[in-house]
Amino acid sequence: MQIAIVLFDRFTALDAVGPYETLGRLPDAETVFVAEQTGPLRTDTGFLAITADKTLAEVPSPDIVVVPGGPGQFAQMENETLLDWLRTTDTTSTWTTSVCTGSLLLAAAGLLDGRRATSHWLALDFLKQYGAEPTGERVVTDGKYVTAAGVSSGIDMGLTLVGRIAGDEHAQAVQLMIEYDPQPPYDAGAPQKAPAHLVEEFRTNSRFTLV
Amino acid sequence: MQIAIVLFDRFTALDAVGPYETLGRLPDAETVFVAEQTGPLRTDTGFLAITADKTLAEVPSPDIVVVPGGPGQFAQMENETLLDWLRTTDTTSTWTTSVCTGSLLLAAAGLLDGRRATSHWLALDFLKQYGAEPTGERVVTDGKYVTAAGVSSGIDMGLTLVGRIAGDEHAQAVQLMIEYDPQPPYDAGAPQKAPAHLVEEFRTNSRFTLV
Repeated sequence: MQIAIVLFDRFTALDAVGPYETLGRLPDAETVFVAEQTGPLRTDTGFLAITADKTLAEVPSPDIVVVPGGPGQFAQMENETLLDWLRTTDTTSTWTTSVCTGSLLLAAAGLLDGRRATSHWLALDFLKQYGAEPTGERVVTDGKYVTAAGVSSGIDMGLTLVGRIAGDEHAQAVQLMIEYDPQPPYDAGAPQKAPAHLVEEFRTNSRFTLV
Repeated sequence: MQIAIVLFDRFTALDAVGPYETLGRLPDAETVFVAEQTGPLRTDTGFLAITADKTLAEVPSPDIVVVPGGPGQFAQMENETLLDWLRTTDTTSTWTTSVCTGSLLLAAAGLLDGRRATSHWLALDFLKQYGAEPTGERVVTDGKYVTAAGVSSGIDMGLTLVGRIAGDEHAQAVQLMIEYDPQPPYDAGAPQKAPAHLVEEFRTNSRFTLV
């Protein structure tokens, strides 16, 4: 089984690494990081670079496609090479997936028309503009399309999909291996839970930019 | 503020990326990935490479040191160049931290003698052998030493430390930004919670190797 994780300039690292660390532990899985060109790709902060080991063209038919998000995703929505690759690989993939604003790329490629999907909480309106039906859930499965909410949700998405593919026991083993027993020191990980003024600051973009 | 995240051959990606995605969003933080030599370093699976942008020697006095773990950590416990760097940077660091078996490297450098600390659940006995006092907690703070349990716990460690350094509100903003509202599909992320036979399989090493 081949898992292709797409990289592009200014992606968000955890969007890609959450699925890598979970899906990548499927039995007999080969994970490959792909981009238009091989070599290191920098994240949104500029401080981290992950290597793309193969070009998109070299990986024409992965079983699982994973599209992360990040501020760089907006530029990619005009990238016909990537959008074409997403459409082509989708014709043979078993699962086509995304984390965070990666779902906007799937939507821009026309793959989420009329489908239930999710994205980073700040990007749900954009997702609707591109023809999907956004939900507030953390992991959304519609047919073979599995989309996850913001950044860290790719871990939950990956474990969910490991369970679907390899069974509950294998998914539990992966969870135990990565000791995923979350104990956040705060309960502010969703707009419904965070202090209202912080949510408003994000929406008005005065202090943080993510998407 | 400078944050140095140590890389070495066969590290575990999420160990490094969890702290990167949280601590790295401290105000005015510069995060730098360091290793003995610059260039890409491969993870435990071999499928992912993160670039070390600077050598250890080029980063002599970071404010925060982050040491990830992974199967490659055992070889590093004999690496006097790295152990010396850990000892030297510790004389000026504000916080010296680890995720997963990274704490074994801090312990091998003599930094955790008699201190409360943690590690991947499979590695707690090793930690004791190296002079620390292992606890079963997910994030352990003893003075300026902050150690985290296995792999995914670096996210909780990072948010905890962001709160200590920049205040609760900033930490909540980071949590909201990375939408860290965990909803694991299983409750098997700790040995006390996972099916007993899976825990036993890990301990007898028949199916999985992590540390």
